[in-house]
Amino acid sequence: MSETDALVVFTPSGKRGRFPLGTPLLQAARSLGVDVDSVCGGRALCGRCQVLVMEGEFPKHGVSSSSTHLSPYSDTEKNLARRRPLPSGHRLSCQAKIEGNLVVDVPPGSQVHRQVVRKAAEARAITLDPVARLYYVEVREPNMHEPSGDLQRLTEALAKEWQLSDLSCDLKVLESLQPALRKGEWKVTVAVHGGRHITGIWPGLKEHLYGLAVDVGSTTIAGHLCDLESGEVVGSGGLMNPQIRFGEDLMSRVSYSMMNPGGAAQMTEAVRSALNALAKEVAREARIEVSDILEITLVGNPIMHHLLLGIDPVELGGAPFALATDEALSLRAQEIDLKLNAGARLYTLPCIAGHVGADCAGVILAERPDLSDKLTLLVDVGTNAEIVLGNRERLLACSSPTGPAFEGAQISCGQRAAPGAIERVRIDPATLEPRFRVIGSELWSDEPGFAESVVRTGVTGICGSGIIEVIAEMYLAGIISQDGVIDGDLAQKSPRIVATGRTFAYTLYSGTDAAPLQVTQNDVRAIQLAKAALYAGIRLLMDHLGSATVDRIRLAGAFGSHIDVKYAMVLGMIPDCDLSQVSSAGNAAGTGARIALLDQSSRKTIEDLVRRVEKIETAIEPKFQAHFVEAMGIPHSTAECPNLRAVVTLPQPKAAAPRGGGRTRRRPAP
Amino acid sequence: MSETDALVVFTPSGKRGRFPLGTPLLQAARSLGVDVDSVCGGRALCGRCQVLVMEGEFPKHGVSSSSTHLSPYSDTEKNLARRRPLPSGHRLSCQAKIEGNLVVDVPPGSQVHRQVVRKAAEARAITLDPVARLYYVEVREPNMHEPSGDLQRLTEALAKEWQLSDLSCDLKVLESLQPALRKGEWKVTVAVHGGRHITGIWPGLKEHLYGLAVDVGSTTIAGHLCDLESGEVVGSGGLMNPQIRFGEDLMSRVSYSMMNPGGAAQMTEAVRSALNALAKEVAREARIEVSDILEITLVGNPIMHHLLLGIDPVELGGAPFALATDEALSLRAQEIDLKLNAGARLYTLPCIAGHVGADCAGVILAERPDLSDKLTLLVDVGTNAEIVLGNRERLLACSSPTGPAFEGAQISCGQRAAPGAIERVRIDPATLEPRFRVIGSELWSDEPGFAESVVRTGVTGICGSGIIEVIAEMYLAGIISQDGVIDGDLAQKSPRIVATGRTFAYTLYSGTDAAPLQVTQNDVRAIQLAKAALYAGIRLLMDHLGSATVDRIRLAGAFGSHIDVKYAMVLGMIPDCDLSQVSSAGNAAGTGARIALLDQSSRKTIEDLVRRVEKIETAIEPKFQAHFVEAMGIPHSTAECPNLRAVVTLPQPKAAAPRGGGRTRRRPAP
Repeated sequence: MSETDALVVFTPSGKRGRFPLGTPLLQAARSLGVDVDSVCGGRALCGRCQVLVMEGEFPKHGVSSSSTHLSPYSDTEKNLARRRPLPSGHRLSCQAKIEGNLVVDVPPGSQVHRQVVRKAAEARAITLDPVARLYYVEVREPNMHEPSGDLQRLTEALAKEWQLSDLSCDLKVLESLQPALRKGEWKVTVAVHGGRHITGIWPGLKEHLYGLAVDVGSTTIAGHLCDLESGEVVGSGGLMNPQIRFGEDLMSRVSYSMMNPGGAAQMTEAVRSALNALAKEVAREARIEVSDILEITLVGNPIMHHLLLGIDPVELGGAPFALATDEALSLRAQEIDLKLNAGARLYTLPCIAGHVGADCAGVILAERPDLSDKLTLLVDVGTNAEIVLGNRERLLACSSPTGPAFEGAQISCGQRAAPGAIERVRIDPATLEPRFRVIGSELWSDEPGFAESVVRTGVTGICGSGIIEVIAEMYLAGIISQDGVIDGDLAQKSPRIVATGRTFAYTLYSGTDAAPLQVTQNDVRAIQLAKAALYAGIRLLMDHLGSATVDRIRLAGAFGSHIDVKYAMVLGMIPDCDLSQVSSAGNAAGTGARIALLDQSSRKTIEDLVRRVEKIETAIEPKFQAHFVEAMGIPHSTAECPNLRAVVTLPQPKAAAPRGGGRTRRRPAP
Repeated sequence: MSETDALVVFTPSGKRGRFPLGTPLLQAARSLGVDVDSVCGGRALCGRCQVLVMEGEFPKHGVSSSSTHLSPYSDTEKNLARRRPLPSGHRLSCQAKIEGNLVVDVPPGSQVHRQVVRKAAEARAITLDPVARLYYVEVREPNMHEPSGDLQRLTEALAKEWQLSDLSCDLKVLESLQPALRKGEWKVTVAVHGGRHITGIWPGLKEHLYGLAVDVGSTTIAGHLCDLESGEVVGSGGLMNPQIRFGEDLMSRVSYSMMNPGGAAQMTEAVRSALNALAKEVAREARIEVSDILEITLVGNPIMHHLLLGIDPVELGGAPFALATDEALSLRAQEIDLKLNAGARLYTLPCIAGHVGADCAGVILAERPDLSDKLTLLVDVGTNAEIVLGNRERLLACSSPTGPAFEGAQISCGQRAAPGAIERVRIDPATLEPRFRVIGSELWSDEPGFAESVVRTGVTGICGSGIIEVIAEMYLAGIISQDGVIDGDLAQKSPRIVATGRTFAYTLYSGTDAAPLQVTQNDVRAIQLAKAALYAGIRLLMDHLGSATVDRIRLAGAFGSHIDVKYAMVLGMIPDCDLSQVSSAGNAAGTGARIALLDQSSRKTIEDLVRRVEKIETAIEPKFQAHFVEAMGIPHSTAECPNLRAVVTLPQPKAAAPRGGGRTRRRPAP
């Protein structure tokens, strides 16, 4: 061992090397390829390059010592610590110099490619590696002897300090370049997109850069604002999609475009305005300027995707449902009139097929079924259900025309999930009396104080998850048969079974001042049709994969978050599966957008994955119709459901009911 | 020789090969790398692939023959010939099939990289290889079995038929993609920029694409509209730069920007509006739509360049004269609010230094002094003179502060070159009587009918070239001395010499109804200062190159087009040179823009050349001042001018005149 150098080991990477005494730790780390963050380039300005010295000695803050392995606190470190206190034992690696053997830990907060902690519903940690990054540089001043442009001296500094080469520069940046350099006294921070394009410039040191991940749904638009340096969500917001005034569901919006010249452009303008409003809202919440947003990622179904981009979705309204493009798009946010930073870039995840959109790609990116040997079923229920089935070997996707029944539409007393809506239902099999819970109240309807708790909201209808539960409970209570017929004979047993013309209905709630909330035979049929379509789509993918079972089920979207998976299985929406393996994936599409925002390598991942996906078109699959008819039953006529039987007692099928349901009045049970 | 194949030789390339009988000539040509144009991809639609069969026989149009070396005229050829007659002997190489040995000539009009014929003032032929090109393709229709996007099937066709890969697509094209494909029944023409970006799409076959080359001068903006498929100029136009209302010359515009908040933005908006007006004007002249313009190239001095791009030129108003950027820029034309095709791209040639702009780069590209062993001097005179000197070995450039005297400004009776301005002058050395010509009249002032010929315009002033001539003639006639003093003693000899305070003036013209047009001592001084600055700049470059002479001189710009080079040499504006080697380069800056428009490889050429240019800053060169003072004399005090003496008789210097000129009254000649 020489007396002029020392051994330094970095943890957690374990990388090690010998360095001359006096070498700054940051320089040593970089020369070994150790991942240490820095925006300011080693000038003790940004505080990002903190390390924890695990072995070796160094003087405590402000206390000098004669024997150390690390240089004492420098004045610049003390200056920074005044503005932003350093945790005990932390040093700025750009300032601390090697004076003996050391073990140095790089804490997660100082790693460039650190993992972002995520919510429980989400499957995996996100690697933080945003496509847009900040770089602080000091630029040579111009002089008469060398008439180079200011941009050339800026890129020279970026190449020297940050190894960035072949950089292009946005015109908008060029316009503000000269004032920024002079205001910052030749010290500036630039934003660089993809290591290639200078997209922003600020005088002096700028430490925070933001990105927005947006899920453009046909009903709601939801966004998360993220700090691209920390990966944290610093603001979230949502608003109604203003396109609703042109049509409640997707197909009515396509119709609007077909019937009205300029209709698509109106809807495009509406959704872009809403995105701008959303950006303003989340920026205000996070107390930043919208001009600090340099990146936006977007998911949405194909029709939302096309309208957002200004593409008339008319081709998606009829066979063969041709997308304008199925590829991911990288654009300037300005190209779709978004008023973020002038240099902001936009990324849309790829669409998969005419009915399987970038939202589904987002779900795949969030859930990554391809990383597991287990066969995973992903279901995102909307007006169409987007279904993905697969594992490490294969990935299949289809869309199934469930219609909007699961969202409470086409149901006589259905409504959106809003205060006053029934969301939970239990029916006593003996008395056929229901009890329920209403959004906005913590109490069940048979608990004391319930009536008072709903005085303000009333009990106004049944939301999607309430519909699932009430029909499943009606089946479990024997009110409806396996083929979905409400048993009129029970009218003798309970006044809740009432005749409505030739069929019967079940009265869930009778208020004093409004029509009673009833589940009619037509409501049951609508749910049967929807769930049969969903299940038939799932079965089709299982057929293609040659598997009779699935290992895991993840339910994405608002529907998946609120539904009790047990009832979904009672109804036969999803195949039989160990209930512990059935869970909500939260807003997985939005999570996918957030992953694409925070981790640039994920973009190639999802683009490659989508290319691998085998697209199944239900409309041309002969077996779809057969599966559909078979799946009308509850749970479903051909199902073996051992997992379900383990948690609920299914009614015994009544004798010899005709298949396919019907409007014929049933005989009384023996 | 086999009986199933045949030998085909293509001229002028001389490429040859054997091909199976029945091979279309276009296919044979392409397999040999013979340069044959085609837009329609061999479908007998565009008529671009015509060839002339020089040997072998084939049936005359419509006449069949039993023994031929080439297949008979096909029906598709006859169909095309009905719309667009083929010259005698011409065949469509995509239709004509090899049936025996052939010699086939590819005429210049069928070559992709053909040469464009240019005007006499221009130095070289331009290779036609535009960055934007049209490609016709037939696209597979979508179907339910393979849900690919329309864009993916389009790019698949472009890859297959035109070997274009990794194409990106403008959002605007994506918006019109689906209607275009369906309107064209899956046959479309796309514009591709740089082999990488789809920038336009049209249903069916589109045959013409246009580009605009513009020289943005501080006084006038001039543009040439070119057919990018033929290289021909199909329209030309010019208009005044509307920035003139903010300041007559460059420095007053920079001052306007400094004194008025938002002033630079006003000037930016003005020049962009003018460019849009120019595009409309030339499009109307050529009977095309501005939306057919897919490419625009621009040159201009640094201040015009910056203002056009929206960059405040304030830094160019004072030392160290830092450019925002000295690199060429490739942008979307929309980024600077140009209303051409939505996919139009813009290219600005690189600037060289704070006073040496993209216009100078245009001159270099047009003249290519680097291709010759001869030492070439390029001079572009404006408010500043931009000077380039060099040859194959080295290239040097500087700018010299001539001021606007050469443009008629700062001259008591100076005016712009417009009808009524004196442009040619001769003075009789014996009588000191002048004769002159006026713009708008073909007659000299001493010819019969002259007075009538100028009744409408009057004789209103002296333009730039007139100033040069009158002062040179005054010197040749002995009216002014070598150091520029008007000899007051001659007042005794001619009434045209008149006293004006302590100095004298020469009366060039006395109208009946206005003040006489006189050349004053101050006018002579202004021209002396301007020409001394120009000559000092030239000498500085010659010093740096270590050369006392130059081989060729090319004078660029309007000034260079109108000036009589002999008088420029008499005045000592330019160094002594064989007069046959001194010529006008026309609007070389504009020609440079046109070359960059028509030949994409020229862009890299000029970018590389500009990087090689050695930039000389006159303001910090100690010798500039010495050269300047020495060059005040006429021709110039230290000049040896054998070439000039060969064509004019220079007056004998009078005895012992004090150097540097002066306001002292001179003694009479002995």
